Amino acid sequence: MNTTSDSSHYVPNAGDYLIASKSCELMSLQYFLRMGKMIQCISNLVHGLQRERGASNVFLGSAGTRFGVERRELLEEADRLKQAFEQALAEIHEELTGDPVSSRLLNQIAIGLHDLEGLDELRAGVAALSITADCATESYSTLIKNLIAIVFEAADTAVDPTIAGLLVAMVHLMNGKEFCGQERAVGSTGFSSGSFNTAQSQRMMHLVEAQERCFQVFTSFADNDSLALWRDVSEHDRERSIKQLRELASSVGRYKSLDPELADQWFALMTDRIDALKAVEDSVEGCFHARCAERYADARESLSHQETLISSLEEEDKSPGQPVLLLCDSGEDEETAGSFASGGVSQQFGRSIFELVQQQSVRLQQMNDELQSAREALADRKLHEKAVLVLMNHRNISNDEAHRVLRKLAMDQGKKLSEVASSVIAMEEVLKRR
Amino acid sequence: MNTTSDSSHYVPNAGDYLIASKSCELMSLQYFLRMGKMIQCISNLVHGLQRERGASNVFLGSAGTRFGVERRELLEEADRLKQAFEQALAEIHEELTGDPVSSRLLNQIAIGLHDLEGLDELRAGVAALSITADCATESYSTLIKNLIAIVFEAADTAVDPTIAGLLVAMVHLMNGKEFCGQERAVGSTGFSSGSFNTAQSQRMMHLVEAQERCFQVFTSFADNDSLALWRDVSEHDRERSIKQLRELASSVGRYKSLDPELADQWFALMTDRIDALKAVEDSVEGCFHARCAERYADARESLSHQETLISSLEEEDKSPGQPVLLLCDSGEDEETAGSFASGGVSQQFGRSIFELVQQQSVRLQQMNDELQSAREALADRKLHEKAVLVLMNHRNISNDEAHRVLRKLAMDQGKKLSEVASSVIAMEEVLKRR
Repeated sequence: MNTTSDSSHYVPNAGDYLIASKSCELMSLQYFLRMGKMIQCISNLVHGLQRERGASNVFLGSAGTRFGVERRELLEEADRLKQAFEQALAEIHEELTGDPVSSRLLNQIAIGLHDLEGLDELRAGVAALSITADCATESYSTLIKNLIAIVFEAADTAVDPTIAGLLVAMVHLMNGKEFCGQERAVGSTGFSSGSFNTAQSQRMMHLVEAQERCFQVFTSFADNDSLALWRDVSEHDRERSIKQLRELASSVGRYKSLDPELADQWFALMTDRIDALKAVEDSVEGCFHARCAERYADARESLSHQETLISSLEEEDKSPGQPVLLLCDSGEDEETAGSFASGGVSQQFGRSIFELVQQQSVRLQQMNDELQSAREALADRKLHEKAVLVLMNHRNISNDEAHRVLRKLAMDQGKKLSEVASSVIAMEEVLKRR
Repeated sequence: MNTTSDSSHYVPNAGDYLIASKSCELMSLQYFLRMGKMIQCISNLVHGLQRERGASNVFLGSAGTRFGVERRELLEEADRLKQAFEQALAEIHEELTGDPVSSRLLNQIAIGLHDLEGLDELRAGVAALSITADCATESYSTLIKNLIAIVFEAADTAVDPTIAGLLVAMVHLMNGKEFCGQERAVGSTGFSSGSFNTAQSQRMMHLVEAQERCFQVFTSFADNDSLALWRDVSEHDRERSIKQLRELASSVGRYKSLDPELADQWFALMTDRIDALKAVEDSVEGCFHARCAERYADARESLSHQETLISSLEEEDKSPGQPVLLLCDSGEDEETAGSFASGGVSQQFGRSIFELVQQQSVRLQQMNDELQSAREALADRKLHEKAVLVLMNHRNISNDEAHRVLRKLAMDQGKKLSEVASSVIAMEEVLKRR
């Protein structure tokens, strides 16, 4: 690479920029290869925090009489996972902050780190029984949501469609698993107290639907191995028992009380489910790493192949007596008429470099086309969240209710959720302008 | 910044990543500030090549008897502009190729450079009268198209909405001006020969429509100064004369011949128009530079402000006796309930960093929302071009005809061009799968 003082002597040429275009892909793949470790650490940390949240909930709910020891153990485990995440982040710190890749990703990391900095205080509050179970759950949930959002932002920077697709699968799986964790918490509260009030029943229904939506997106982007694992999870015997308990939770009013024994059963079943989902996450993560490594090796080979090719072409070009071809294809095929080298004047050298550059152009365009569906899945998710916020602000309703309103609108109008979300957002723009 | 060997000691924190997020924006602005010079050089080079193309056309059309001297002068001028472009490229070579920003941009530069490498041979062909006027025009046009496509790809990498918008305006103005140049060429051929055949008349109509579409997009993204200049161009007296000549070109059949004197008049009028459009381009370019510089200064100030703020917060944080607040807002406002620091546990330090991070988050989201329209304009353009290719391949028709088919479909179905283009592309996907 040239230094700035050399720049006055450097004359840019097509070969160099073709190589630069290939190198750029390689750099991006290398970046995701290293990012994979951070994403895995986030997946692990989120899992640890979900377990810590569950134990803290029981601990607070029992006024400190239950899960004291378990909670401390889970806390230490979560601390180890937090350190592993920080370590992984430190390893790619320079790469992340040295290139102008994504302000949003960096800011989301800042948000995640900030939340983690408050973790010790949250735990102190739990230990001293000075905060309520709801308040603790909410704080843990926000922390987890913001950690998952880091993976979302990372997915949004991917330019390779396979890699982007797997990250989209990963984000939706993580979100689905998190909704599952929140369902465990609501269910535990209800079953322990012997009854569910309307808000709790509705919240559970909302969380079940939210999970299903996430898993649906997951299945359209996941690799086959992870899909097979996922099918095992959804066809497991446990699912039937969970379904029965869910029905109890939504149908039994507050005057008919439930056997409190069910609380432990529910907690165990859902914990089992969450652990199984974590195994699917690990599989996606493994596949992600393998794909990155594979694509990186391919790109590297292709780059070195092209470098050899180009330097041999340049050698040829320097040799004297090279025949100069004057071609004009304008009467030929409409399809190739748009290209300068084939439609105009070219040498053997020009033609070959031209072919390489055209190949790269077609490849990049295909990759971009294939990337669309992954980008759309991410955009839909953002749209949905934004529409929920709009509804919450305008109608002064809760998050759950806003989700319900959106779903109802979609059902009533026979439209997709994303279409309804767009309309809601557009409506707000109109309201603002009045 | 840390070196890799330090990474084991570095513990990532929210403040660092907030700063990194801001720096990332700053890097991107700096990149566009330097890219502006390259874009200006492309605008100048394209203008030079358009003039060279015009002169070469007349030279070839007159079997070398006219414009010999003018052509050589324009050729030398275009060479100077080419060197200036290469120089500008060399200056940002490292920046462009060192960061994994855009493979597509780099490959498009490779395509442009490759075409420029063939320029001398094209000129030799023109000088020796060994290629036809049509063939030379086509080669120049492809070269120009590929140079403009560099600006398109640059626009696609912009993350700041104002900057992206101005680049979208720039690309569409350049494209419109190029269609105007092509119209000048077709018109010159027709008027010189005393008549227009159907293909020539239709081509002119197509070019007029294509110009209007480009200028329409330009007007929705341009700055006020450039818009005022643009209005001067479109309301100039010359436009009436051009309109009259256009009507002659489309209504007079091949059996009623036109005064060949009109050729010079047409060429002069269109040249005048093209030069006026170049002045608008220069205005957009000037505004682009000013905005980049302004946004860069703002971002720099904001960054240093935040750095000061964060280090003072960190100082505060180290001081002993800091009161630790335990807050839970869960009963309060639904709107703020989603945030961890406000909904959970926080210190004064945490709260302030949190506010800064949230501000940045909201800002980035707003920027992203505002960026959408610019991105859509670029995507529409790509979609349109792709649909034209699909139609050319499937129906075995020319580029002009494909444009006509698309426009007719849109008119008949009462849909937007972009909608029809999507349908055509979707249709091809279906046909492929059979």
